[in-house]
Amino acid sequence: MKSYYGKCVFSGIAMGPVCLIKQGNHAIKKYTVENIEDEMQRFLEAKAVAVEQLEILYQKAQREIGEEEALIFDAHQMMLNDLDFLEGISNMISQNKVNAEFAVSETGKNIAEIFSGMDDDYMKARATDILDVSQRVISIMSGSQTQVLQMTEPVIIIAEDLTPSETIQFDKQKVLAFVTKKGSANSHTAILARMMNVPYLIAGDIELLSELNNMQAIVDSEEGILLLEPDAATALTYGSKQEALLKKRSSQLALKGMASATKSGRKVKLYANIGGPDDLDMALSNDTEGIGLFRSEFLYMGRSDYPSEEEQFQAYQKVIQGMKGKPVIIRTLDIGADKQADYFEIPQEENPAMGFRAIRICLERVQIFKAQLRAIYRASAFGTTAIMFPMIISLEEIIKIKEIVVEVKEELLAEGISFGQVELGIMIETPAAVMVSDELAREVDFFSIGTNDLTQYTLAIDRQNQSLENYYNPHHKALLRMIEMTVNNAHDAGIWCGICGELAADMEITEQLLCLGVDELSVSPVFILPLRERIRAID
Amino acid sequence: MKSYYGKCVFSGIAMGPVCLIKQGNHAIKKYTVENIEDEMQRFLEAKAVAVEQLEILYQKAQREIGEEEALIFDAHQMMLNDLDFLEGISNMISQNKVNAEFAVSETGKNIAEIFSGMDDDYMKARATDILDVSQRVISIMSGSQTQVLQMTEPVIIIAEDLTPSETIQFDKQKVLAFVTKKGSANSHTAILARMMNVPYLIAGDIELLSELNNMQAIVDSEEGILLLEPDAATALTYGSKQEALLKKRSSQLALKGMASATKSGRKVKLYANIGGPDDLDMALSNDTEGIGLFRSEFLYMGRSDYPSEEEQFQAYQKVIQGMKGKPVIIRTLDIGADKQADYFEIPQEENPAMGFRAIRICLERVQIFKAQLRAIYRASAFGTTAIMFPMIISLEEIIKIKEIVVEVKEELLAEGISFGQVELGIMIETPAAVMVSDELAREVDFFSIGTNDLTQYTLAIDRQNQSLENYYNPHHKALLRMIEMTVNNAHDAGIWCGICGELAADMEITEQLLCLGVDELSVSPVFILPLRERIRAID
Repeated sequence: MKSYYGKCVFSGIAMGPVCLIKQGNHAIKKYTVENIEDEMQRFLEAKAVAVEQLEILYQKAQREIGEEEALIFDAHQMMLNDLDFLEGISNMISQNKVNAEFAVSETGKNIAEIFSGMDDDYMKARATDILDVSQRVISIMSGSQTQVLQMTEPVIIIAEDLTPSETIQFDKQKVLAFVTKKGSANSHTAILARMMNVPYLIAGDIELLSELNNMQAIVDSEEGILLLEPDAATALTYGSKQEALLKKRSSQLALKGMASATKSGRKVKLYANIGGPDDLDMALSNDTEGIGLFRSEFLYMGRSDYPSEEEQFQAYQKVIQGMKGKPVIIRTLDIGADKQADYFEIPQEENPAMGFRAIRICLERVQIFKAQLRAIYRASAFGTTAIMFPMIISLEEIIKIKEIVVEVKEELLAEGISFGQVELGIMIETPAAVMVSDELAREVDFFSIGTNDLTQYTLAIDRQNQSLENYYNPHHKALLRMIEMTVNNAHDAGIWCGICGELAADMEITEQLLCLGVDELSVSPVFILPLRERIRAID
Repeated sequence: MKSYYGKCVFSGIAMGPVCLIKQGNHAIKKYTVENIEDEMQRFLEAKAVAVEQLEILYQKAQREIGEEEALIFDAHQMMLNDLDFLEGISNMISQNKVNAEFAVSETGKNIAEIFSGMDDDYMKARATDILDVSQRVISIMSGSQTQVLQMTEPVIIIAEDLTPSETIQFDKQKVLAFVTKKGSANSHTAILARMMNVPYLIAGDIELLSELNNMQAIVDSEEGILLLEPDAATALTYGSKQEALLKKRSSQLALKGMASATKSGRKVKLYANIGGPDDLDMALSNDTEGIGLFRSEFLYMGRSDYPSEEEQFQAYQKVIQGMKGKPVIIRTLDIGADKQADYFEIPQEENPAMGFRAIRICLERVQIFKAQLRAIYRASAFGTTAIMFPMIISLEEIIKIKEIVVEVKEELLAEGISFGQVELGIMIETPAAVMVSDELAREVDFFSIGTNDLTQYTLAIDRQNQSLENYYNPHHKALLRMIEMTVNNAHDAGIWCGICGELAADMEITEQLLCLGVDELSVSPVFILPLRERIRAID
């Protein structure tokens, strides 16, 4: 029995045979080309094929995993059209007269190196994406596209690293776990694994020998361990551990239809965060009591122009109607220089997390904002709807927003278009909003605390910056005091206050949040039933 | 009489003849060179001369204006050695076989365009710097170095734009005001103008016709106006306005030696912010009662390796001794990815303002921290010394700092080196520190609120991002409440609380700050006497 220790990306236990993925870097031949234009043409054709392929992967991911995760492949399509990438390739072909495969490979490597060199795990992880995209184009040109792995039985996949394309291609019924030598908890592959509900362990020490193939193995990613050829006793131990886990999950399923209330009867609204209409099924099948955060960015990303009011209306209507009267809280556009759609033309910023984003854009580009508000109001005729506004720092913003809302309602009335009663709330995600939450509470119908942003501003720590991971403490007393202050001010003004950041799903702190008086928790659909179980265990 | 309106960069009134600076872009000739190596050599020699010239400007600026501002020319020297700049030039010369002047000019323009394109006024302003540096090298190569303007009488300088080099060359006794068509309040030129105490107006509409030369003009930059050929009545009006201003200034000088106390006798400590030992004279001549913020970054910037303990000791000792027993509060290293010395090797960050900086670096790179602490403790034998630590977010950090301080003191004792009683305080500049200031107050001797950073984190607005200028409200109620909370917690624990950010010098709010109980205000030396006047006018 051999064991390797590693880092958990997504927790779970898996037992079964290993399937080793051989990825060996195919050496790219370099040769001189005579006709530069032909070579460029060859590249452009391959690029067009790659875009088509990525569109298919996008649709597969959208169908099987979710709208938000599918955007990874949309991002890949954009990488293919990135100017630095195209210019790099075109310059190499024309100046050095080299073949397109070599030009793509070198340019891809150069850009990947820039990402890798950043020493920020998040950016580093983007290197894998650019190499993935380059490899796709090269494979198309050289006619060597890797076969989709056909698996006959469920296996534990072990590989050097996995690209998002490789990951999505697997039949998720046949994957017990992922183990990679390289990789990062922030990679797109990691995100996909989590959404596919597949345990994922990064074990840097593992040797990728072909003997691994078909070897029996156990992965307990929560414990951070990979065991090869476990003895019978060990297999038994993990077998019962796995069984206990499965039991726990099925007992959680039995909580469907039950109340989210403590033993003493205190009820909590348990809502779901969704990224688009395609997440609705998952939210409903996990018995959500409402949508606490419907992110609207999916409507704006991965396209070349603003979505029309009609398009938006249809997306909102689908969710609102699908929730059959249960509340749906739509957050208006939360985009900025770091999370951007090109056509917004937001200039690069030195500190995008504290930049021109979210409500700041909406209040300056009122036409975009009004189109979204009109679409939401129109959809509100089909169910219980609320709107929440991100990145609020002052009363003045709320006053402006309400003026625009009045205009929108008057326009709709004049056009004879019906709409429902729509509650208006705000995200509390800046320290400023916390400090003046008494005044803000008098102007809105509810608060939703966005703990992710609030934590990063409060601690002055970029939550994407991996070198600061040790400093980023989501349980910091400053944050808990801010939550208390916000909840108290909300209740004093007679409105409710929820949480929709990652802290809402953090079961170590659920009891404390309820003690602070939090009325609602909005979490990823997969956390709803476990959280309900946790709440029901509290006195 | 003709009038132009513009934006105030530094306020004041000036009256006198215009001196128009002709800058006309000298067309750079492009020609083919045979010997690439000779051409590169020619460039490298010119670069070496440029570095020498910049060293002279650096010394002039240091002597006449101050250490911190002099660093601009240090930065220019670094630009000359920037790899992108050097590679761009070397590539152009070797690949395109063009003359070095052309290569420098094109490369300079390319880099400047990148800065300009950023649409962030701060970064935009860096374009002027790179063009300034390029022009210097080109002038050296073409033997066309512009003459230093010899002014016989005091004049109002009008120009398209002014580079920092041009600005520092002027005899500051002969400059009444600067008026430029282009430019930015964030440029290095603007910083120099402020330190030279010269009114500065940016008037975009002005036409730079040669008739302007010797024309009589009035600049009232506070009002944002330039008047050409004013009539007698107007001249009289501005004459008396100017006189009133001068009177005010001289009445402020009379406040030297007087107490900084309100009418009711409440005393406020009125301290100076300084950037290095060379600012000491200015602080003393403005009758400062202590140094409230001695920034220590100057010791680390513009060099290729860490400063030795001895070097640091000498700088600290000079100031501590110079203050003759008045308190000197030294802030430990506040450096990061945005304000960095290369040899620290801090990786690029997506959001450097919320990155690996200040105390976070010191607590991880303990040797650097200990060297600084040893130097400060050694210097503390020469006067009243205090240390303050930046970017604190938690009690744990203070505990760690105190452990290191104990080690340093034990080492010095063991070595038989004497040191004084040193008070330890912290900057309150993160929302987290405010929220737990009750706990922090029990562990330190004083607080100093850094309102600049505190405001940006609280409002989630990068204060360098000009597109958000309208949102950045330093008087936001959230901030005032935070100040109140911090001061109350300090007083409850029996310690004092000051302010050392820009808000400390904001006289609109002085009365309110005193009402909130603020004990100390630390400001740029030039603001000390005006602020004392303001305090003495308060009941």
